[in-house]
Amino acid sequence: MTQILRMSNLYAPTLKEDPSDADIDSARLLLRAGMLRKAASGLYTFLPLGFRVLKKIENIVREEMDASGAQEILMPVLQPAELWEESGRLNDYGPELMRLTDRHDREMCLGPTHEEIIVALVRNELRSYKELPQNLYQIQTKYRDEIRPRFGLLRSREFVMKDAYSFNATQESLQETYDAMGKAYGAICERCGLDYREVEADGGQIGGKVTTEFMALAESGEADLVYCSCGYAADAEAGACLARPTLYEVDAMEKIATPDVHTIAELAAFLNIPESSTVKALSGKDAEGNLVCLFIPGDHELNELKIEGLVPGFTLLTDEEMISFGLCKGSMGPVGLPEGARIIAATSLQAIPQWVVGANEDGYHYVGARLGEDFQVDEWADLATVKPGDCCPTCGLPLEGARGIEVAQIFQLGDKYSRAMGATFMDEDGEEKPFIMGCYGVGISRTLAAIVEQHNDEHGIMWPLSVAPAHICVVPLTVGDAEVQPMAEKIAKDLAELGFEVVIDDRDERAGVKFNDADLIGWPVQIVVGKRGLKEGKVEMKLRRTGEKKEVALDALAEMMGFARRAMRDNVLHGAGTGAFAAIFG
Amino acid sequence: MTQILRMSNLYAPTLKEDPSDADIDSARLLLRAGMLRKAASGLYTFLPLGFRVLKKIENIVREEMDASGAQEILMPVLQPAELWEESGRLNDYGPELMRLTDRHDREMCLGPTHEEIIVALVRNELRSYKELPQNLYQIQTKYRDEIRPRFGLLRSREFVMKDAYSFNATQESLQETYDAMGKAYGAICERCGLDYREVEADGGQIGGKVTTEFMALAESGEADLVYCSCGYAADAEAGACLARPTLYEVDAMEKIATPDVHTIAELAAFLNIPESSTVKALSGKDAEGNLVCLFIPGDHELNELKIEGLVPGFTLLTDEEMISFGLCKGSMGPVGLPEGARIIAATSLQAIPQWVVGANEDGYHYVGARLGEDFQVDEWADLATVKPGDCCPTCGLPLEGARGIEVAQIFQLGDKYSRAMGATFMDEDGEEKPFIMGCYGVGISRTLAAIVEQHNDEHGIMWPLSVAPAHICVVPLTVGDAEVQPMAEKIAKDLAELGFEVVIDDRDERAGVKFNDADLIGWPVQIVVGKRGLKEGKVEMKLRRTGEKKEVALDALAEMMGFARRAMRDNVLHGAGTGAFAAIFG
Repeated sequence: MTQILRMSNLYAPTLKEDPSDADIDSARLLLRAGMLRKAASGLYTFLPLGFRVLKKIENIVREEMDASGAQEILMPVLQPAELWEESGRLNDYGPELMRLTDRHDREMCLGPTHEEIIVALVRNELRSYKELPQNLYQIQTKYRDEIRPRFGLLRSREFVMKDAYSFNATQESLQETYDAMGKAYGAICERCGLDYREVEADGGQIGGKVTTEFMALAESGEADLVYCSCGYAADAEAGACLARPTLYEVDAMEKIATPDVHTIAELAAFLNIPESSTVKALSGKDAEGNLVCLFIPGDHELNELKIEGLVPGFTLLTDEEMISFGLCKGSMGPVGLPEGARIIAATSLQAIPQWVVGANEDGYHYVGARLGEDFQVDEWADLATVKPGDCCPTCGLPLEGARGIEVAQIFQLGDKYSRAMGATFMDEDGEEKPFIMGCYGVGISRTLAAIVEQHNDEHGIMWPLSVAPAHICVVPLTVGDAEVQPMAEKIAKDLAELGFEVVIDDRDERAGVKFNDADLIGWPVQIVVGKRGLKEGKVEMKLRRTGEKKEVALDALAEMMGFARRAMRDNVLHGAGTGAFAAIFG
Repeated sequence: MTQILRMSNLYAPTLKEDPSDADIDSARLLLRAGMLRKAASGLYTFLPLGFRVLKKIENIVREEMDASGAQEILMPVLQPAELWEESGRLNDYGPELMRLTDRHDREMCLGPTHEEIIVALVRNELRSYKELPQNLYQIQTKYRDEIRPRFGLLRSREFVMKDAYSFNATQESLQETYDAMGKAYGAICERCGLDYREVEADGGQIGGKVTTEFMALAESGEADLVYCSCGYAADAEAGACLARPTLYEVDAMEKIATPDVHTIAELAAFLNIPESSTVKALSGKDAEGNLVCLFIPGDHELNELKIEGLVPGFTLLTDEEMISFGLCKGSMGPVGLPEGARIIAATSLQAIPQWVVGANEDGYHYVGARLGEDFQVDEWADLATVKPGDCCPTCGLPLEGARGIEVAQIFQLGDKYSRAMGATFMDEDGEEKPFIMGCYGVGISRTLAAIVEQHNDEHGIMWPLSVAPAHICVVPLTVGDAEVQPMAEKIAKDLAELGFEVVIDDRDERAGVKFNDADLIGWPVQIVVGKRGLKEGKVEMKLRRTGEKKEVALDALAEMMGFARRAMRDNVLHGAGTGAFAAIFG
């Protein structure tokens, strides 16, 4: 039988005031509700109620991972730096990798991710294609030395992750595991009650070209994303360029005087055309110092992630460097660029036969500059950051924009790590081949914060049933009363026997204090037991999410709750359980 | 329903040979059984089967902790060094404390224990005696930078611990929590199937004078302990001095020539008396360099832990130092020691009126030196290490000796940390008082190793039911056979539906390979499904622990296993479940 939690000795110190250093709703509410405490910058302690939620999310993740056929293991957090040298990431990873030297002066690091350790683990043990695929996962504390830890659990230095690594013999097999993980992650988000989008993303320090992020939609999110009613969604940093430049048609290329025009906004205003009809020019240099000129639709911004992928070491030119290359700031264009300049333009501009561009001469621009005749482009590429209003690449409708919290990400790594670290298997045809790998991460503590970001109101948290620290809070209005107290205890006991997780607020506090705390902590259901109600054989039931209240006869309580319990079992398996009590309040 | 594990895709790479670097049975067997792998010195990965055992132990610990009323939390592993400065342990802890500096050059450490963090957590939140007692625990990875990691999980650098900290208002309340934890720890050891002893111990770096260790008896253990049939037990390093020196009686003190006698053994042989009738002398100096002379029964050894507690900074004199103090090596005694020497003798010698001791003159000893007449003793103290054969301090019978693995320890800390860190509460009488604290640790990964040390034979591991990676292994002898394979699958499914954890060895391997692996991994029950047996409607059941085999009719299997399942539920709640199948084999 589940133990009944008692508020009288539960270590859940709620706070009356908002903590001064909470910079986001989830941190503020988790601190106020006595679920979380800050131990130091970016380091938190989960108090009993916060810990219960963390464990529930962990168990949902574990269940979905096990159902997918993945196997749970536990690797060390502490990793020898040598392994990171082997993979080539020791320097790439930068100062976010926490390092230390042990007492024998060996360099170690605290794992932010475990590709190196797991490749070293399997490389002498998984030998044949017959033993593949394998998908191994762990749930563990991870480390990232954030330069500025903030937003509570969203950017902390120590956090709980589920990380999985698959070893496949072929790309097709990897795709199958990747798809299975995507499906499991969708189920995890559903069961945690998250409104989320699967978005195209970028591999970052992990690597891999095919990667999907699972974004919980939230205004407070750090990521910009675009999505469409057709189902398409992408991280704005990584989405394919979906800009729709508009044509400004003239008969032939014409050089026009544009006095005092130095920006796209000024140019568009001067010509009385939309910014999307102009072409923005940017100049930079590659790692060797060679000139690179970029052109994108006037209403877009250059995406630094994308240009770095295309031109490693790319940096924008300073004003002095522009002058030394003979470029004209504020009036740059593709016509008459210096010899040897590498010209790259946004793919979306390919459809525009005539461009409005700078004339490489201060105070002058061209309109109607003809692609292929007046100027050439060396390369077409995806250069701009997607933004709301751009065309959906799938269906063509305008994209919507949103902000999101990245709670999970899946990657197709290919042979990046297995090749670098010499991890091979014997293929069907007797050939030694590097493993094809995938990796799959869920931020467990991040998910907890994302749930709070999505499920709160001015009174506090509104936990989905599936992850609530307990399902039902029984509130005796007068503790010690000869009728109220025993009846509250009996109701709590009966509900616990039905399989609910129950807390009883047996503190000798005023009703207002109890109600406020119950709303702040966010128990999904409250059952209030008072003297007056009992006289009529009734208690009051309240749904935290909707605020609905209902008087329920004691006679009917057990049956109704039994019904809700069965509904809940069903509900939390296929979602967050939010509808379990609908029938009672319906 | 529990999922059925399949050997065909389980990541459990068993090894045919003993790994060369395994220096203890548990490490050797866990590696060979494909449950554990070494990632680096003192760092291990738990593979799926090892992880399942780890989780089971963790859950037993969690259940017993929750039942005791303790509440689970999760504190950060990474701790600011400032907190350790506050408590005064930053330097005391020594090089076993793993340290690092973060990117902002702040000193941090990886927690080997969490007194500092938890005192900082509660010190501004637990304010009144009304909120006490509280007992908060966590299950977490901990760190100790062992100078020479060895013995697999027993001396690793990263390990899983359950650590609990209690905050009490009074010593009486602390004693209650301490006793409750002792009871919970006994239950944990029982349920894990450990043959263990609760022993008096020493506080070490944690501190605290009242402390008990839970020792799993094992020849490979690093600790010496003594115990008695009456229930008394102690760590030999820490046990009260229970020596029984014997009297060698003469009429009066007599100085006798003892040519070539320099050791206790030589002296006893020369006088033809037992070593326990002589008195061993040792000379040392305190931190200030003052002479300290120690006397203990001749058959005992000085306990360094005890003398360090009594004379901080104590070191034994070198030969040169002895000469400079005017002492005579090989013939030291309490009669005529240099002026100012601090003379400390073992309490057990207090009962001996006449001593056999050195005469402080080369080649001479005294017999019958009279305590209080011929010489004086400044202090009586517990100085010697207990050894088997010494008297039990409770009942007087001779003590037995054993070696043990320390799997858990409980401490009464008193106000050591709360006072140093200014953590106080308001007492009933309105006074601010420091919390009275206790702390309570269980080595989870250590317990796993201890279980293997106690439960193995020449074929492999013999897991107790309560912690086995699965309960029953179904072995179809011919995979793919039209009768054997489906019947094995059906039996596995039926057993899983009964609530057993089942693994099926569906690998296309020879029977011998499967039997060897099943014994090595140590599934408690094996059910062998073969062609010949099926013809007679029978399968073979084998108990791993006893090696007993029994033919069971398919008709009777379900009923018998249902019976065993019910017996097991009962058994594992009150022990390791070893007897659950007794009825079937009885």
